[in-house]
Amino acid sequence: MKNIENTVIGFIGTGVMGSSMAGHLLKAGYPLIVYTRSKEKAESLLEKGAEWAETPKDLAQKANVIITIVGYPHDVEEVYLGENGLIPNGKQDTYLIDMTTSTPSLAERIFQEAEAKGIRAIDAPVSGGDIGAKEARLTIMAGGKEEDFDEVKPILELMGQNIVYQGPAGSGQHTKMCNQIAIASNMIGVSEAIVYAEKAGLNPEQVLKSISAGAAGSWSLSNLAPRMTKGDFEPGFYIKHFIKDMNIALEEAERMGMMTPGLSLAKKMYAELAEKGEENSGTQALYKYWQ
Amino acid sequence: MKNIENTVIGFIGTGVMGSSMAGHLLKAGYPLIVYTRSKEKAESLLEKGAEWAETPKDLAQKANVIITIVGYPHDVEEVYLGENGLIPNGKQDTYLIDMTTSTPSLAERIFQEAEAKGIRAIDAPVSGGDIGAKEARLTIMAGGKEEDFDEVKPILELMGQNIVYQGPAGSGQHTKMCNQIAIASNMIGVSEAIVYAEKAGLNPEQVLKSISAGAAGSWSLSNLAPRMTKGDFEPGFYIKHFIKDMNIALEEAERMGMMTPGLSLAKKMYAELAEKGEENSGTQALYKYWQ
Repeated sequence: MKNIENTVIGFIGTGVMGSSMAGHLLKAGYPLIVYTRSKEKAESLLEKGAEWAETPKDLAQKANVIITIVGYPHDVEEVYLGENGLIPNGKQDTYLIDMTTSTPSLAERIFQEAEAKGIRAIDAPVSGGDIGAKEARLTIMAGGKEEDFDEVKPILELMGQNIVYQGPAGSGQHTKMCNQIAIASNMIGVSEAIVYAEKAGLNPEQVLKSISAGAAGSWSLSNLAPRMTKGDFEPGFYIKHFIKDMNIALEEAERMGMMTPGLSLAKKMYAELAEKGEENSGTQALYKYWQ
Repeated sequence: MKNIENTVIGFIGTGVMGSSMAGHLLKAGYPLIVYTRSKEKAESLLEKGAEWAETPKDLAQKANVIITIVGYPHDVEEVYLGENGLIPNGKQDTYLIDMTTSTPSLAERIFQEAEAKGIRAIDAPVSGGDIGAKEARLTIMAGGKEEDFDEVKPILELMGQNIVYQGPAGSGQHTKMCNQIAIASNMIGVSEAIVYAEKAGLNPEQVLKSISAGAAGSWSLSNLAPRMTKGDFEPGFYIKHFIKDMNIALEEAERMGMMTPGLSLAKKMYAELAEKGEENSGTQALYKYWQ
């Protein structure tokens, strides 16, 4: 970070993932200012020495690198473009890094509005979940100007391991959508295989010994299928958040005139489960679709 | 193989996979008798010292361990149950091992008819393809009596590495169906992710760097997606054979009263491609569904 002098990091969104991520920055010695909707969620960071900001505006006036990881695209929109938001109140040459999984179109709009004010915006959504955030092993997929990405990369490296620049503004979000699209259909296949195994009278754990290491192998088959067979539906990744992501991907695909047979089917199946009260279960609860 | 004295192995079906598999048995020093529909496909084995049989009946009268890997379930039916087949003409205590991917129901029927004649039948389909067969690294999923499986396991170990007993007759075939079911939906997700990446203006190879190692990761994403992006649709596994396998799984699932949303969708998409002339392409040609 040759060009960022006297770095002060602002961090917005200290949920389960954000808290871990901000904690790594604090531990690395950066001055940290935090804002989040419910102040109690920032308590542990404040105890460790972070400073509190009353609004994004307040934070924008003090920090020159600002990281956000909030809930939904409308939260991103408010934090970045709202009256008390980061862009209307940001200083020139500030780096804004949105790590929320949000829409590529919004990322492009934020980039453009930021650029008009001399602010540098990067979209950098992550995968790897709570554990990846905790262990600083997140995958980070970045879009924006490559020189801006290079500049903040040392900060991203405090939170993740597989950090790849993917192209202009929105490319990080688009890459995250590719990730979610690949997962969506695979979750159907993994669930269907386990249900078939059980209906056929097989021992699904024994079946996994045969099929996990070969051409059917996947992260989901190795990590989520065993939870299905044990009846463990605790959230690693919430169904409600997965539905949010699938909706973004579906909208973008529609905008690009692209068919999405697998994604549309997965979205329909998960939406049915959510209606039946499974929205706070982990994505492996797709198994229950067959019950 | 304590109980198999003076083992003579019969091998039926010397296609690309069968030839490699039979070759390993010959190399291990077993006397080998081969039969296959087109004799020229057995030439290389005959040159290496295998003996030729004119019919399955002829072979059944000489061998006491018989391995089959033929094309379709109707081929299996003919080889095992036809007039010149293995069961009507087999000797008591012969071990019959069908390594074709075939129907679980047929495997059960073969087991019963064999048992009535004092013959021991095992269903043991494989995954791992041409390369797995060549390198003796096949995954072998076995059904039948466990004591029979234990007896022939040393022979199976000459052809494969991950060899798991799955349960009574048909369980090997059912396990192979679980494998194909998991692959079917995942192929949709992998193709859809690559098509989305391209439509979004991303570099798909760069996207794979971000998504292959995380929660979207799978054998198909690592091995087949790069072929899609390079336009390489050469068959590792033929679409026509995958359709055969999916049809078996669909029939079995229907028989068990099980919904198969993912498998049904994959079958429909692959069937459309086959109709367009892609039946001899590799399964990664699912990518062309979007063209």
